[in-house]
Amino acid sequence: MHQANRGPKPLYLEDLSVGQRFFSGHYQIDEAQIKAFAAEFDPQPFHLDETAAEGSLFDGIVASGWHTAAATMRLLVEGELRLANGVIGLGGEIAWPKPVRPGDTLRVESEIVEVLPSRSKPDRGVAIVRGVTLNQNGDQVQVFTAKLLVFRRPAHSMASP
Amino acid sequence: MHQANRGPKPLYLEDLSVGQRFFSGHYQIDEAQIKAFAAEFDPQPFHLDETAAEGSLFDGIVASGWHTAAATMRLLVEGELRLANGVIGLGGEIAWPKPVRPGDTLRVESEIVEVLPSRSKPDRGVAIVRGVTLNQNGDQVQVFTAKLLVFRRPAHSMASP
Repeated sequence: MHQANRGPKPLYLEDLSVGQRFFSGHYQIDEAQIKAFAAEFDPQPFHLDETAAEGSLFDGIVASGWHTAAATMRLLVEGELRLANGVIGLGGEIAWPKPVRPGDTLRVESEIVEVLPSRSKPDRGVAIVRGVTLNQNGDQVQVFTAKLLVFRRPAHSMASP
Repeated sequence: MHQANRGPKPLYLEDLSVGQRFFSGHYQIDEAQIKAFAAEFDPQPFHLDETAAEGSLFDGIVASGWHTAAATMRLLVEGELRLANGVIGLGGEIAWPKPVRPGDTLRVESEIVEVLPSRSKPDRGVAIVRGVTLNQNGDQVQVFTAKLLVFRRPAHSMASP
């Protein structure tokens, strides 16, 4: 399954089935990136300042959860789950069980949880995909169960399912 | 409620009650920002390239949902919901009903949905906060129902509830 989904062939709703798994490359986040992201989007002491972060709940600088989410998206977009019309998220359930710390290297493992063809729009459907973002120790730093909009294969290319 | 929560006084779990609402300032997103965020975190044609975006589902360049989420966080952190130990999200349910387009100006309206003191940790609890991000037309571009970690007021400062 892992091997079969590599390569440039774009995936349509018909190509997805429950239990399929997709992997990603790696993404390292350093302290400068954590601070730059936080300065722009999440300016709180435990993301920006070592001394303040030491005295916080996190006991050291941690990345914004939204930075973890954004890095995960980069991994997804460049990973094995190459959907024909791109990775278009409608929403989902997100959790950050552990924070990302400077120097952490992330990767994502995605699994198809549900495939739901649309009843009203015959050209598309929704795939429920559970993406688990892991650090270099195998700790889960994010779990995002996403609703992705996925197109069905157009009629003229149905020859090779 | 709106007025009462302004100012520097930090909020503890005791200060939150169901139905309270908190407002934010405004955040404008331009095309350069959309492309810069997407280039780093969500490099897909409908975020990066006008021509490709015209032919996409979105009919024009749109912001990554994670950019919308990050901008919303900035609005939250600098808005009225000034929690004593910062805005610490454990996770939640996110949806992007409409995309953010270049030039949109966002704001966030947050409402306390539930206040849950921890049974095991007497110094803290969880607040469920529904944050609706709106554009300049009042369209909902994001709804995030967040679980926030909120600390209780320390004993020595219980004098002024």
